[in-house]
Amino acid sequence: MFGDLVYLDNAAATRLDERVLEAMTPYFFDIYAVATSQFGYSLGIDARDALDGARARIAERMGAGPDELVFTSGSTESSNLALKGVAMALGPAAKKPKGNHIITTKIEDFAVLNSARALEKQGFAVTYLEVAPDGRLDLDRLREAIRPDTILVSVQAANQEIGTLQDVPAIGVICRERGVLFHTDATHAFPRVPLLGGVNAANVDLMTVAARTIHGPRGIGGLYVRKGTPLGKWMDGGFQEFNLRPGVENIPGAVGFARAVELVTPEETARLQTMRDRVIARLLTIPHSRLNGHPTLRLPQNANVSFRFVEGESILLHLDMRGFAVSTGSACFSRSLEASHVIMGIGGDHEQAHGSVRLTFGRFNTETDVDAVADALAEVIAQLRAISPLGKE
Amino acid sequence: MFGDLVYLDNAAATRLDERVLEAMTPYFFDIYAVATSQFGYSLGIDARDALDGARARIAERMGAGPDELVFTSGSTESSNLALKGVAMALGPAAKKPKGNHIITTKIEDFAVLNSARALEKQGFAVTYLEVAPDGRLDLDRLREAIRPDTILVSVQAANQEIGTLQDVPAIGVICRERGVLFHTDATHAFPRVPLLGGVNAANVDLMTVAARTIHGPRGIGGLYVRKGTPLGKWMDGGFQEFNLRPGVENIPGAVGFARAVELVTPEETARLQTMRDRVIARLLTIPHSRLNGHPTLRLPQNANVSFRFVEGESILLHLDMRGFAVSTGSACFSRSLEASHVIMGIGGDHEQAHGSVRLTFGRFNTETDVDAVADALAEVIAQLRAISPLGKE
Repeated sequence: MFGDLVYLDNAAATRLDERVLEAMTPYFFDIYAVATSQFGYSLGIDARDALDGARARIAERMGAGPDELVFTSGSTESSNLALKGVAMALGPAAKKPKGNHIITTKIEDFAVLNSARALEKQGFAVTYLEVAPDGRLDLDRLREAIRPDTILVSVQAANQEIGTLQDVPAIGVICRERGVLFHTDATHAFPRVPLLGGVNAANVDLMTVAARTIHGPRGIGGLYVRKGTPLGKWMDGGFQEFNLRPGVENIPGAVGFARAVELVTPEETARLQTMRDRVIARLLTIPHSRLNGHPTLRLPQNANVSFRFVEGESILLHLDMRGFAVSTGSACFSRSLEASHVIMGIGGDHEQAHGSVRLTFGRFNTETDVDAVADALAEVIAQLRAISPLGKE
Repeated sequence: MFGDLVYLDNAAATRLDERVLEAMTPYFFDIYAVATSQFGYSLGIDARDALDGARARIAERMGAGPDELVFTSGSTESSNLALKGVAMALGPAAKKPKGNHIITTKIEDFAVLNSARALEKQGFAVTYLEVAPDGRLDLDRLREAIRPDTILVSVQAANQEIGTLQDVPAIGVICRERGVLFHTDATHAFPRVPLLGGVNAANVDLMTVAARTIHGPRGIGGLYVRKGTPLGKWMDGGFQEFNLRPGVENIPGAVGFARAVELVTPEETARLQTMRDRVIARLLTIPHSRLNGHPTLRLPQNANVSFRFVEGESILLHLDMRGFAVSTGSACFSRSLEASHVIMGIGGDHEQAHGSVRLTFGRFNTETDVDAVADALAEVIAQLRAISPLGKE
């Protein structure tokens, strides 16, 4: 905590858990060799063991094999590797081209969305599927979109803003039946939202994960790559990470990531969900409010509510003065000066986006934070509406 | 240190300096927000200040402006961004194409070399310049290689294996005169080898740097990008890092990198150079030995000596048993099972590569390490030669 701050922006970044740093420390000061030195000296063997041990522990939590996880610098890189790697392996420039069509949704994270747009510029055809007002993807819509030249479906496991979960296993079945690779961005879902039976049973071929959303270190993420999945080497360099991701291995990061995964328990997730449900219930008692995203099929840590006649950035500034950190989908808050593509993508209008507030809970939040932020939001919104030029209730 | 280990592979990875971790710690536990939340709450402003402060401090050491450094996940990513970003901005697919020819050397690190090869597969023409037996690039050779359609020259500041320094300012002048962008991989040179007058005076447009070579954290590096340099966005996602490198910022990493740069002093570098010179002098008293790389124009921390009639991996295993960690350019040591492309690139033969031993010094080495490793190497080589099937002196 920072002073008296109540930090409710855990989807953006989380405070590191002390136990994660503790796990990483030996790899800063004692076992600091690179893993590729394993054939040269003993310290390299210890480094290799640490790296592969971390890999195996995270993979196990996914239901994956110990060789099916590639470490990256984070979720953005993972999704770039997934989309662009498949495009390299199966697109028109591949040795055995399969097609040039990719399917995704309009509410993906920028890493997926903008990788898809970059591929479009290279000549790939991309279908950006609409989602329902609750953020869910209609599976029939997906079935209809798949073409003989479709090489990849990329649908997130959970949305970064509105928290809506997608039916990953059902999408997996469709993709498998049609012989199309399936990538899912699980940055905000893994490992809090268990994937029934694991990636294997869910027919996931590629899955983006990150440590920063679960009190792990910055600068480390991963991509699950099902054994045998055709994937080009997007970043060039050495032969590390099964020759899929070059560069000196971030072993402290990998070990910290594994520890962070271990520390996420079903009990903790249940606690976050209780906080989420309570804050949503309280915020919906504020007049002219509405929940963004699905009421139950949503991330256990995510609440997102829009308030009419107020602007998100005004809410944020007033909350900040009261010691609360939250997020908004308002245009003026974003670097692109565009309203949240997610809120717009669920059929919202600019007002719904401007007045949206996202609260995301983490390990270091307490039950008292919930009532405190609900009280503060009720007051701030009443104040702002009293002086709002946007209209009144 | 790890037990009694004498670690002399600091070019691969270095032990973290405790003072670096100390500088990072507040950004794990107190100021853990993302920098893009600066418009939302105070903690974001603190995060932004920390990120930009770290950027400015590193940039200053380069002689660059505070906005001319992009943080990446490490040197491999930096060099990918440099080569592929220029290819995107000036290559045939650019809005204003300039050409499709790139010049580099045969002894670059794999990140540059394999990025160049990847671009070749996309239709770019690449000239891989030969270097002299001491590893130096002949500037006339470079002048002759530049064509009207050349868009980039990528020549390393210092070689990763043999330590040879290139004349970066002279290459900069040539590139500037011919209107060609100049990228230099300074992974092993910055900030130990001062660039006279800085990147600006040296006419460097793009420069790869990393924290791991100077007792900084793993998973953070940077690319100097001279203001106005045309560079495509190679990794897709959000708008971070001047819209050149998306993904949640690794602020602890950036702060640690800046601290690591500060901790590198001319006094320390002089100390490393003294160790280097002493170990080289001692190793060259071993019969049938020769120095790889330039005798004086070399990294202050790098010694690389080849011994005939012995194999590098045997030397390494025997040294490991005696508690020394070093590296070799021998084929069996590499994942690719190829002899060092650097030793082969300086006109060496397989025997010279097989029998090469690289010792790279760091902050935590002491003068006693020098004599200890020299004694051990003399004994090990005599032992191995006594039983060697490769021939005898």
